[in-house]
Amino acid sequence: MSESEQAQFDLIVVGGGSGGLAGAFRAAEHGARVALLEPSLLGGTCVNVGCVPKKAMWLAADIGAKLRMARSLGFAVDAPPQPCELDWPTFIVHRQRYIAGIHDSYRKRLDKAGIVVAPMRARLLDARTVECENGARMGASRILIATGGHAVKPAIPGAELGGTSDDFFQWTAAPTRVALVGAGYIAVELAGVLQALGSQVELFARGQRLLEGFDHEITAQLADDYRQSGVRLHFGHPIAALEADGAQVRVRGADGSLSEPFDQVLFATGRKPNSAGLGLESAGVALDADGFIRIDERSATSVDGIDAVGDVTTDPPLTPVAIAAARRLMDRVYAGASATLDRNDIPTVVFAHPPIGKVGLTEDEARQRHGDNLHIYRAGFRPMLYALAESPQRSLFKLVCVGQERRVVGIHLVGDAADEMLQGFAVALKRGITLDDLRDTVAIHPTSAEEVVLMR
Amino acid sequence: MSESEQAQFDLIVVGGGSGGLAGAFRAAEHGARVALLEPSLLGGTCVNVGCVPKKAMWLAADIGAKLRMARSLGFAVDAPPQPCELDWPTFIVHRQRYIAGIHDSYRKRLDKAGIVVAPMRARLLDARTVECENGARMGASRILIATGGHAVKPAIPGAELGGTSDDFFQWTAAPTRVALVGAGYIAVELAGVLQALGSQVELFARGQRLLEGFDHEITAQLADDYRQSGVRLHFGHPIAALEADGAQVRVRGADGSLSEPFDQVLFATGRKPNSAGLGLESAGVALDADGFIRIDERSATSVDGIDAVGDVTTDPPLTPVAIAAARRLMDRVYAGASATLDRNDIPTVVFAHPPIGKVGLTEDEARQRHGDNLHIYRAGFRPMLYALAESPQRSLFKLVCVGQERRVVGIHLVGDAADEMLQGFAVALKRGITLDDLRDTVAIHPTSAEEVVLMR
Repeated sequence: MSESEQAQFDLIVVGGGSGGLAGAFRAAEHGARVALLEPSLLGGTCVNVGCVPKKAMWLAADIGAKLRMARSLGFAVDAPPQPCELDWPTFIVHRQRYIAGIHDSYRKRLDKAGIVVAPMRARLLDARTVECENGARMGASRILIATGGHAVKPAIPGAELGGTSDDFFQWTAAPTRVALVGAGYIAVELAGVLQALGSQVELFARGQRLLEGFDHEITAQLADDYRQSGVRLHFGHPIAALEADGAQVRVRGADGSLSEPFDQVLFATGRKPNSAGLGLESAGVALDADGFIRIDERSATSVDGIDAVGDVTTDPPLTPVAIAAARRLMDRVYAGASATLDRNDIPTVVFAHPPIGKVGLTEDEARQRHGDNLHIYRAGFRPMLYALAESPQRSLFKLVCVGQERRVVGIHLVGDAADEMLQGFAVALKRGITLDDLRDTVAIHPTSAEEVVLMR
Repeated sequence: MSESEQAQFDLIVVGGGSGGLAGAFRAAEHGARVALLEPSLLGGTCVNVGCVPKKAMWLAADIGAKLRMARSLGFAVDAPPQPCELDWPTFIVHRQRYIAGIHDSYRKRLDKAGIVVAPMRARLLDARTVECENGARMGASRILIATGGHAVKPAIPGAELGGTSDDFFQWTAAPTRVALVGAGYIAVELAGVLQALGSQVELFARGQRLLEGFDHEITAQLADDYRQSGVRLHFGHPIAALEADGAQVRVRGADGSLSEPFDQVLFATGRKPNSAGLGLESAGVALDADGFIRIDERSATSVDGIDAVGDVTTDPPLTPVAIAAARRLMDRVYAGASATLDRNDIPTVVFAHPPIGKVGLTEDEARQRHGDNLHIYRAGFRPMLYALAESPQRSLFKLVCVGQERRVVGIHLVGDAADEMLQGFAVALKRGITLDDLRDTVAIHPTSAEEVVLMR
């Protein structure tokens, strides 16, 4: 590498998703000369085919559900399916306008920060040099890999008959009958959205429950709420194949069973890191068996000067984790900070209907760590709106506490508003609280959130 | 008093509102023999003409606002005023059924707890004896006064032409044009509900702002949101009289101005304690100049053996305060506990459209206490749903921090979901947090709540 190449940039960021952008912006704030390489849309999965359009669809679905209640509450709306029916093209214009606004905002901020943006693929030649797809080479003192991940389909016969969440975001109408394969957060979120927007949804899960990793009682309540809303849940039902039936598709179970035909089938069975073709192996960057870049708590890869954040790494695949890890990294490298991102007690929400959230340990995890020295508190109730509308949807909140002092090690919520409720409790849990700290805080009445501080 | 009278009960509770009931239940739980005297509906103001029906109307109004957005988002609903129009009688059936359910639940719990309920007025003869309106006398070791408060109209000409919140809960349709007199939480809540349900609302405030006691920037944002939704706000506009104009009413300002005619005028200018006619003076219980029972932090009145909780006292007039004070009192009296209710950092929410909440000190209060050693952080944004629907409603969150360590002494929120968001942050603030504690908590994306932990 020539001297001039070496001096070109302080930092090259490969990948313009949330984590890469956060790193680029923060580094530039600290005075670093930054180049960003992104061949596709700024914002990555989150902004384009993840969190943002997903939340937009969830908001539409929530309005749809409210419309369904409105009539029984006394509002002058027609009987379903009208007016619960959404004209997707109209809504998609709003959704994509919102996303375009984020793109615009990113571009303006990149310009303002003086960040060089190269809209192209790149691969690492070594720990300080990147070759772009047009052959140009760029040198930098450090490289940040933030290329994200992508949805994959299982290797089963007929897999091409099904889509993934990427395809969902291309749809322009709700299919009449749709199957979701999987029981993770993407399957659960898409199932909820589609059922609320008028599809008849069936979900096929290999295991016996939704959302492995969330508290089992909370996911059982969610499953109840899903069944009440009309979603058909098939547990212990691994899929062997998809089979065409005219323009429709049937799901063949591993037990030989054949489903009714669906208009659409979506796989939500896994995501893989975008770690291939980046020259990582030649640069000596270590991957795990599934292709994720191995990083430590400082977001450092196995190669000095190469860091990585986000879904391409072994970190939890959450946008705010990628952003926080990237910012802390740049604060350490360019501003003398020392703090690393604490990966414990990361709160997370699944935008189900109703939403579900957790921070800290599930009851099962706490039992493994603390034995029987646990105290569990629960509040199950029907939120006022659902009681007024005589809708069966219920909320369940659960606290996992340890020891005589009832230290709160887990907070688990399913129910209306859980998505907005959790953040503050997550701050409190991370700060360290006991059950008494909850009880000593005066309740806010009438809310759902007050149930968390009123548990006995 | 005879020996038998003296031994009758351990506790007589005068008033079956939220505070009285909470005290009665908790005392009975601890084995006390309890009598409850309540001549009217169980649950008091909160359940019957306060929090509960108010929240029900707020939920209906929220649905109405969502319906208005639904059409522009692409849902197949008719243009306003249809289907935003609520048939009040239908909704009121739901609302009153919900309230009847609470009454039923109270009655069952009272029976189960073995609490003697006397549906009648009573007055104190001395610190251990109560005389019911039928002449019967009851004796007890302790008496708890929890008779609540009531709305009052100002003493101006034509006041009889206006109503109060009690009248609002008797309405069976939204008036076309309605005036609210006042700028406190009741005026703000009723104004928001009525505007969202289709009324043309004007609000007349003596002072220059909404919600004295809340942070001024937050209430300014709320005033903006109200104006955007069509509410006409008249600040610095004290009222001299109401004047009939056919079946309608005009508002005469202190400056001589005369408003357009309204179909309804509601006063939300103050509430008074229900402390008259209870024999408090003869029992020697001290009142303040406005008739509120003076209590200390243990809820004790000036007379040994007579305690008081709730809106009849000098405590903050919030249902959860009355409940918490009553429970702690009974835990001390009957279960050897020592904790008193901490009246600092009580979180509170106003169910405006959007809701507004606070815990801790406003910027002005913090400045008085801590001088210029303050650091203020703000996040102003349009929540995704409102951005999608191209609705102008904005959120504003504000942190008041003190000193080098940025200790968080105030959290102030206005915006969608602020009502459910605040409780967890209130736990954290009360536990003691710095800005870094917020920043070290990973954000939950995409939510409004994450803006609180992402402020810079």
